[in-house]
Amino acid sequence: MRTVDVIQKKRDGHELTEAEISFLIEGYTRGEIPDYQMAAWAMAVYFQGMTAAETASLTMAMVRSGEQMDLAAIPGIKVDKHSTGGVGDTTSLLLVPLLAAAGVPVAKMSGRGLGHTGGTIDKLEAIPGFRTELSREEFIEQVKEVGASIIGQSGNFTPADKKLYGLRDVTATVNSIPLIASSIMSKKIAAGADAILLDVKTGGGAFMKTLDDSIRLAEAMVAIGTEVGRETVALITGMEQPLGNSIGNALEVKEAIEALHGKGSPRLTEVALTLGSHMLRLGGKAADLTEARSILSERIADGLALAKLKELVAAQGGDTSVIDDPGKLTSASRVVPIPAQADGFVEAIEAEEVGLAAMTLGAGRATKEAEIDLAVGIVLHKGVGDAVKKGEALAELHVNSPDDVVAQVAARVTKAFTLSEVPVEKPALVYAVVTKDGVERLAGGRS
Amino acid sequence: MRTVDVIQKKRDGHELTEAEISFLIEGYTRGEIPDYQMAAWAMAVYFQGMTAAETASLTMAMVRSGEQMDLAAIPGIKVDKHSTGGVGDTTSLLLVPLLAAAGVPVAKMSGRGLGHTGGTIDKLEAIPGFRTELSREEFIEQVKEVGASIIGQSGNFTPADKKLYGLRDVTATVNSIPLIASSIMSKKIAAGADAILLDVKTGGGAFMKTLDDSIRLAEAMVAIGTEVGRETVALITGMEQPLGNSIGNALEVKEAIEALHGKGSPRLTEVALTLGSHMLRLGGKAADLTEARSILSERIADGLALAKLKELVAAQGGDTSVIDDPGKLTSASRVVPIPAQADGFVEAIEAEEVGLAAMTLGAGRATKEAEIDLAVGIVLHKGVGDAVKKGEALAELHVNSPDDVVAQVAARVTKAFTLSEVPVEKPALVYAVVTKDGVERLAGGRS
Repeated sequence: MRTVDVIQKKRDGHELTEAEISFLIEGYTRGEIPDYQMAAWAMAVYFQGMTAAETASLTMAMVRSGEQMDLAAIPGIKVDKHSTGGVGDTTSLLLVPLLAAAGVPVAKMSGRGLGHTGGTIDKLEAIPGFRTELSREEFIEQVKEVGASIIGQSGNFTPADKKLYGLRDVTATVNSIPLIASSIMSKKIAAGADAILLDVKTGGGAFMKTLDDSIRLAEAMVAIGTEVGRETVALITGMEQPLGNSIGNALEVKEAIEALHGKGSPRLTEVALTLGSHMLRLGGKAADLTEARSILSERIADGLALAKLKELVAAQGGDTSVIDDPGKLTSASRVVPIPAQADGFVEAIEAEEVGLAAMTLGAGRATKEAEIDLAVGIVLHKGVGDAVKKGEALAELHVNSPDDVVAQVAARVTKAFTLSEVPVEKPALVYAVVTKDGVERLAGGRS
Repeated sequence: MRTVDVIQKKRDGHELTEAEISFLIEGYTRGEIPDYQMAAWAMAVYFQGMTAAETASLTMAMVRSGEQMDLAAIPGIKVDKHSTGGVGDTTSLLLVPLLAAAGVPVAKMSGRGLGHTGGTIDKLEAIPGFRTELSREEFIEQVKEVGASIIGQSGNFTPADKKLYGLRDVTATVNSIPLIASSIMSKKIAAGADAILLDVKTGGGAFMKTLDDSIRLAEAMVAIGTEVGRETVALITGMEQPLGNSIGNALEVKEAIEALHGKGSPRLTEVALTLGSHMLRLGGKAADLTEARSILSERIADGLALAKLKELVAAQGGDTSVIDDPGKLTSASRVVPIPAQADGFVEAIEAEEVGLAAMTLGAGRATKEAEIDLAVGIVLHKGVGDAVKKGEALAELHVNSPDDVVAQVAARVTKAFTLSEVPVEKPALVYAVVTKDGVERLAGGRS
């Protein structure tokens, strides 16, 4: 087999065989196929796309390129969740204890934040003492005993994906749905998931800006899951505004704890319950979504989900007193309100702008190497659809920065809000559900 | 400027500026832009194409990447010819002395053969003593004195094109009309041409298999020439059969000499006169094609073209006695006839197959490093449209090969001929003329 012939076949719009895709990925991982041939192939894929079978072959070839987490020692169906990256998205911190409390084992490997989006591992490090690096044995043992564990990604998972992603980043081939889909799915499958729930964000703050593109990406990932025997469901959720009210690491932990007390922001809780219901069903612990939602609501109401979070934090060496009293979490030196410039209604909040503003304060990273400040961030007081009075706080900045940076960020956050003189409807939270049976578009934002 | 942004701009179908194209080509030539980014860009060009302005910018950026031949010391308009590569195409050997005899200076750099196509430099080396490597000064001095010189390509011309072509070859991005057009034109412009006549072959034995593709390539090259101030005309000529009757180096020299005696194969002479007429007009030595053709016919009839060939051979150290007596050229040890299997009419002769058969005998190179045998080759006795009797020779092989190779080649040549039971029309020789004013499609095969 010659690489140039495989490139040409894809260039001409033909379907590659599993053998041809394995040849490419194995050769590339071993360094036998050079970057320039993979770059030409990736651009050909950009234009010609890939069939479901090709995308599944690519996914599994990338899974085979490195280590695979073996979760067989943990009884039950292991359900993993992936979000395409949002702003103020603290759902993982809610869902992990919630699902564990409902009997679904959660062995979760999470990442760190980059750019305008946060990462679960950074957030957890706001809990003093919390260890995000456990050995494989500790990790699996904890899931067996506590029902859940969250650790940072380590080890040599999907090296082909890492190498290919680095190449796509500098060759304008990132925005290819089959390449994005196989990259995400390969990481989830290598991490040992039996079933996968995908949260595909759509809208201004998301990677996929339009609903149609988001659905296409979701369909591609569900098709991969179906093809390789991992039941996969994708929800398309809105990113017209930050999901929770808090953006910033300690601030988001605090909001997650409030939500497990039944007092979180309605948007965050609603999306977490919707995602969680699907995960509970995928995990075989509920017959349908109605039953699943009632189980999860019960686990919040009876305090078992919050107790599970404490148990998880304790097991990973964290200080559980911050769960009882989130006021003990690290906090910023100053809180600066962002007042509304006029009476009106919030029409939009540019999530990406708010995420970048929080990053500028130190809550996130502009580059992989940047240090972050766990205490700082932004808390929204108003969401899309809310009425505001001139001078009322739209949001508050939690800052440790000098005045000039604060002034600049305050202006940016002010600009991120669009106010309307007429009442505005609250946007949908969930736009569509994609399963192997097809796409269900939702009018009301709930599934 | 970031390379990835330039790639993305082309990927998304936008026109690149001259500055962007220069940035790519200069960076690539200097090794600052890596192969993988150029490969992705080339594949994006494959899908999105390039405008005439972009193609011209690319051409000139490649010209500037290396040396440029300065022909200013030679008075007159220097007209160069390029052929996209045919089988049995000896037109250069006819045209160079013919044009020089008609007063157009010809400073020609030629290449060697590869695969099924021959090269003028190989053919000239069949003349004992002929030097194809002259210094720049000798070359220019000879054109001034004799009116013509033919040398091999040397020096650092269009290194960007060489590097890019090598990359395209292994990334399935060869077959892109703007990339082919700019590659050809950059070499001609760097070689110092004021005006350019292109012979774009079409049909089975050619790089471009269809007339429409050939015309598109011709249009792209003429547009470049127009854009950069080099008058360019392209003829689309047929490659349904080898052009001349001889395929092989010494055999083609012999046929060229016969043609200059007025006794060449009618196809070869007709195409040479048509190409030459356009070149004479481009060179400002004839007001129109009718006048040009009559001047050239006169130069054959009065023997001045043949005398010019002798003068050129003498100036480059070659043995002129082979011009007087082509029988003195090196010849093969055996001549093997290829008999017709039935009565009929020749319907087609697959030129590429005949070229590859000659290559197998040693007349051409399978790889750049291969040695060739100047004496061997194939002489056709019948052309498309000719009547044949069973047992009559369709062609003869001039061979120095062992019997098994000869048998294999004989079978291949036999198969290259298709015979019909009913009379067949002779195909057109020239299908279209492309100038800056547009495309003229010709019915009768003459312009």
